[in-house]
Amino acid sequence: MILSFQKAASDECLNKALRRLSENGLAAQIVESASRRLIVITSECDSMPGHFFSQLEGVEKVVKLTARSPLAEDSGCATVGIGSEERRGRLFIGLGRKPVVIGGPCSVESREQIFEVAHAVKIAGAGALRGGAFKPRSNPYDFQGLGLDGLKFMAEAAESARLPVISEVMSPRDVEICEPYLDVFQVGARNMYNYDLLRELGRQTKPILLKRGLSATIDELLQAAEYVLASGNLQVILCERGIRTYETRLRNTLDLSAVALLKSLTGLPVLVDPSHATGKRELIRPLSRAAIACGADGVIIEAHCQPEKSISDAAQAISPAALADIVKDVDLIADTLRQIDKTSEPDSSPEECILR
Amino acid sequence: MILSFQKAASDECLNKALRRLSENGLAAQIVESASRRLIVITSECDSMPGHFFSQLEGVEKVVKLTARSPLAEDSGCATVGIGSEERRGRLFIGLGRKPVVIGGPCSVESREQIFEVAHAVKIAGAGALRGGAFKPRSNPYDFQGLGLDGLKFMAEAAESARLPVISEVMSPRDVEICEPYLDVFQVGARNMYNYDLLRELGRQTKPILLKRGLSATIDELLQAAEYVLASGNLQVILCERGIRTYETRLRNTLDLSAVALLKSLTGLPVLVDPSHATGKRELIRPLSRAAIACGADGVIIEAHCQPEKSISDAAQAISPAALADIVKDVDLIADTLRQIDKTSEPDSSPEECILR
Amino acid sequence: MILSFQKAASDECLNKALRRLSENGLAAQIVESASRRLIVITSECDSMPGHFFSQLEGVEKVVKLTARSPLAEDSGCATVGIGSEERRGRLFIGLGRKPVVIGGPCSVESREQIFEVAHAVKIAGAGALRGGAFKPRSNPYDFQGLGLDGLKFMAEAAESARLPVISEVMSPRDVEICEPYLDVFQVGARNMYNYDLLRELGRQTKPILLKRGLSATIDELLQAAEYVLASGNLQVILCERGIRTYETRLRNTLDLSAVALLKSLTGLPVLVDPSHATGKRELIRPLSRAAIACGADGVIIEAHCQPEKSISDAAQAISPAALADIVKDVDLIADTLRQIDKTSEPDSSPEECILR
Amino acid sequence: MILSFQKAASDECLNKALRRLSENGLAAQIVESASRRLIVITSECDSMPGHFFSQLEGVEKVVKLTARSPLAEDSGCATVGIGSEERRGRLFIGLGRKPVVIGGPCSVESREQIFEVAHAVKIAGAGALRGGAFKPRSNPYDFQGLGLDGLKFMAEAAESARLPVISEVMSPRDVEICEPYLDVFQVGARNMYNYDLLRELGRQTKPILLKRGLSATIDELLQAAEYVLASGNLQVILCERGIRTYETRLRNTLDLSAVALLKSLTGLPVLVDPSHATGKRELIRPLSRAAIACGADGVIIEAHCQPEKSISDAAQAISPAALADIVKDVDLIADTLRQIDKTSEPDSSPEECILR
Repeated sequence: MILSFQKAASDECLNKALRRLSENGLAAQIVESASRRLIVITSECDSMPGHFFSQLEGVEKVVKLTARSPLAEDSGCATVGIGSEERRGRLFIGLGRKPVVIGGPCSVESREQIFEVAHAVKIAGAGALRGGAFKPRSNPYDFQGLGLDGLKFMAEAAESARLPVISEVMSPRDVEICEPYLDVFQVGARNMYNYDLLRELGRQTKPILLKRGLSATIDELLQAAEYVLASGNLQVILCERGIRTYETRLRNTLDLSAVALLKSLTGLPVLVDPSHATGKRELIRPLSRAAIACGADGVIIEAHCQPEKSISDAAQAISPAALADIVKDVDLIADTLRQIDKTSEPDSSPEECILR
Repeated sequence: MILSFQKAASDECLNKALRRLSENGLAAQIVESASRRLIVITSECDSMPGHFFSQLEGVEKVVKLTARSPLAEDSGCATVGIGSEERRGRLFIGLGRKPVVIGGPCSVESREQIFEVAHAVKIAGAGALRGGAFKPRSNPYDFQGLGLDGLKFMAEAAESARLPVISEVMSPRDVEICEPYLDVFQVGARNMYNYDLLRELGRQTKPILLKRGLSATIDELLQAAEYVLASGNLQVILCERGIRTYETRLRNTLDLSAVALLKSLTGLPVLVDPSHATGKRELIRPLSRAAIACGADGVIIEAHCQPEKSISDAAQAISPAALADIVKDVDLIADTLRQIDKTSEPDSSPEECILR
Repeated sequence: MILSFQKAASDECLNKALRRLSENGLAAQIVESASRRLIVITSECDSMPGHFFSQLEGVEKVVKLTARSPLAEDSGCATVGIGSEERRGRLFIGLGRKPVVIGGPCSVESREQIFEVAHAVKIAGAGALRGGAFKPRSNPYDFQGLGLDGLKFMAEAAESARLPVISEVMSPRDVEICEPYLDVFQVGARNMYNYDLLRELGRQTKPILLKRGLSATIDELLQAAEYVLASGNLQVILCERGIRTYETRLRNTLDLSAVALLKSLTGLPVLVDPSHATGKRELIRPLSRAAIACGADGVIIEAHCQPEKSISDAAQAISPAALADIVKDVDLIADTLRQIDKTSEPDSSPEECILR
Repeated sequence: MILSFQKAASDECLNKALRRLSENGLAAQIVESASRRLIVITSECDSMPGHFFSQLEGVEKVVKLTARSPLAEDSGCATVGIGSEERRGRLFIGLGRKPVVIGGPCSVESREQIFEVAHAVKIAGAGALRGGAFKPRSNPYDFQGLGLDGLKFMAEAAESARLPVISEVMSPRDVEICEPYLDVFQVGARNMYNYDLLRELGRQTKPILLKRGLSATIDELLQAAEYVLASGNLQVILCERGIRTYETRLRNTLDLSAVALLKSLTGLPVLVDPSHATGKRELIRPLSRAAIACGADGVIIEAHCQPEKSISDAAQAISPAALADIVKDVDLIADTLRQIDKTSEPDSSPEECILR
């Protein structure tokens, strides 16, 4: 059971509710978010009448914990704003917003490279800059990224190009030091089950981009989001990035049925990463189109000024020109979907089946 | 090595070529198709100079067997025509054609039901009628379809509604008796590796709709197509219908990366079946849009006049009204793609990366 | 609902039962087997009192169709005898019998080769001879086996070495012509869903070795067995041969949890094929040991006199000497299991937990 | 390239080697372990002659970095000793040692419960105690374990029963505070890709039990081990615990082919966890037997004094009595394997194939 209060609800009001719950033998915890204050009841409370909760002072809404991930499955958190007008610019992702295209290199390779790319993806029409500074690599001897230095270069470049920054953090210990230099904390596929990291990010005020694990179920993805949400950060963006299957022609298998399913289960924004999903640059354009067509709120794509020279994942990087094509495709398909939505009447015709 | 001759090439001409090959120690077999005559060389022939083959009389084209599935990977067979103007109508599927929507029930349940559905999907805008008469069922005690009777009902209904008929055959022994009553032989996912059936269908003159196996790789799908093609039937339509993964929320996982990949590997038309892929009626519309957006040549969808009353797969059947919505979506998205193709110039601009 | 009669039950007796069922509105079909006669009731019959069925004349046992695969899940069919004393020798597989080792080449390559191998595996201690004459190959241009000729060579060789013959049939059309030359019809992994083939084999009097499909669930495997059983052939041997996963180091992933699970669900004998499961000769010995240790009734292994020269699957073939080692291992582990079974008392001791 | 020095090698000796490398333009880092001192060269060094490295003073062995995980694939680290004689007792796992059985509850539930279980599994013959204090749970609202308190209870109980303690840590931040209360740090399946945690554990002096990720490849598992090894801790024990597949009858699919494969690739000890692999208590005994039979160095099993009352994973917990049966099975099968190894001569007989 979750009790939702207005943001303006006073501490006194919440403490009073907690006392009333406690008197009735119910344990509970307070969750703070940018737009609301919540009390999550962690004891069994099926035996209590519903009105007991709804009549507590200040309670606006009562959400039953029948769902495994009640906050994620609640459609409230439909749009997430990233970045800020004052610094690197601001972008909205989610319900009712134009789908976004986010671009940038797999890895920040140097100050010069990230400046080049930042401006190139801005000109191509991207709405935010992605780039890896802390790189999770299967092999300990592979390039592990430039770390904090890389992140600082990226923040500078993004400020110059006026693009919000999305970058991965891999450890709860890095969250605080990275925070000033990014606008969205990315949780990579390998860390989707890293609950300690998720909880730490749940205490942050900046949004989280949560990538689906290599073979995570949709329920596990929603529950990973729930870790962040239940720790108080309601700004979670989900990301499908391909799942592991037996197919060897592609790096992963892009699961767009998951995107359509997620959009039917949760109000959280959903992005698609066709770069990691396929590992093949020539498939990124058609799959970006498909992602938008089935309802994704945007795509996140690896772009590089000299794609073949990327020091990691070269086979999947595309040029800024190719990214610009995708930006146009995304706009056109989004227009088409809006046009469909306008003309589609709730009940259409050839329902009546006639035998001739 | 494959030698391609004009359809009009004489027997004498082909026999002469065979003799020349034989004199040089090479084994070969003739493959007949609607549009061409082929000689497939089955011995190793890397040591022979290329011009030896190209200079054989009547040879138009020489295809190297470096590919595992040379006929499937040859882009020649780009459009497949199904049905006939005289009987149930004709439809073209593939390159340069409008994407198609094919609809119909999971199972033919009765003469009345299939007549109802046939006319309803026609009115909804579908281009062909699908329906199961011979049903492959995991359980021997489940409904196995009406068999030949069902197929005859469907042929009648389709003739009345003027729609070509697509239906599954499960055994080489059924091919001949079913042939008059259908326009496309469907090979179901469970039979993709049934090479004896594939060879038998390779000897037919009507097109084949080949569904991807439950966990078939793309190479296996192309090689299954190759069985049909190499037996002489070049009219093969591929169909992605979801693969088996660990996800339990959906019946299968729709693999649209496979569609984009197939379109980059083969000229054969590719359809998508979102009904079997997801098993969930509410996901069929967004995934149909996505299928077309990533380049599929059409969708094949389970439709029923009383979806909830389908005697098989009720959860995935949609109403004719819902099918009509998808027909409109498909048209609009196809228009958008055409518009993109027209405006996209070979080389676009923001290639030049500027450091500021 | 399944009614089981003694083998000796007369036609009159069964027909009388059918009439009684029919008078009560119940449809049913007769299933004949080597050891029993069955009536499978295909209508819903939950409303009838249980004693209605048990009191029908001649009925020995009533099996409820609550299970999806009632015949497979019935523990009756616990031992299958293959071959005959008169011809190529006889071997028993299943409950209460010593685990078996079956060996032979991937493909019959020539009369000479199969004679060599047959005698070598006999000397090594194998109980039956396996070998492919009709080979299901992903690629239509790969070697497809010697066909009927190969099977005849194998039958001769096996008669000379006195070993029952196990070989694959791929089409219902081949069953009759192959029948004289083999003792067990093998259904390959690719044909596990080929229901027409399964039904045809259900009408045979010789046993069936049913391999698990590439990504078949255990329920699907049992239901495939049910197709054979319900068609009248109760002599089905199941075979785990590795499933398809994302792992690329091995050809497939051997699923011994499936073997332990099958032994808890069905009385049908279960074999393990470590050769196809791994594709790596050095893993066959440890995994054969493991197969027997978790309860398999035997192993079926690819052996060749010049393993590296096998024309198919050379990397997984082992020498007759290596096969002999496995025969010894299997015997020793089976002895150990028997010893455990003898000494294990139903209730052992340290149940009582003491806090100190 | 890795240069291996004796443990007793002086700092001066290593620094001298580093300088020589540096003079030749090669970057390198020192790795300390309990038994050796290593220099890992991280630059490309293919152009240098091999003897350049072998002749550096103090170098005992040069390992080429052709392998992706050179330390893991080096067979040196064949036995890991856990615990200490002074405190909770000591146990050796790996090459040449009797296979071990490790038992204990899924979760530490209370001081009383863990004392009960500790003594019960000791009496049953287990060699170490496992138990979860920090529990990784998919759902943030599920029981997350007793945390540090639980770990302290377990340490006390284990000291009383004289059993080394194995328990999971989920975050680099917990490593230091947990260290006194356990003898082996367990990395759970969900954290196999948590490279920050792996590096932190690489700096510890106690052994690591590294569980295979839910859908990790064998190469990824070895590279995860490499993260620990390359950070200086050579005491890594691998653990197969089932992989995620499409099968729904079991919690996971136990992959014993991975165990046989690992034993052919690495000298690191390999354990098997049949409890998590199957989620079904009745399959744990046969699969424990199979694990030992294919070469595992032991099994780790969930045991509870009242299995049905476990607050987590009740369906897979077994009683101490059942654990005692497994201890006996493991001993008997290990004896059988030893007996096989003694009698097996390098070259056995029926190699010669005779055609009769």
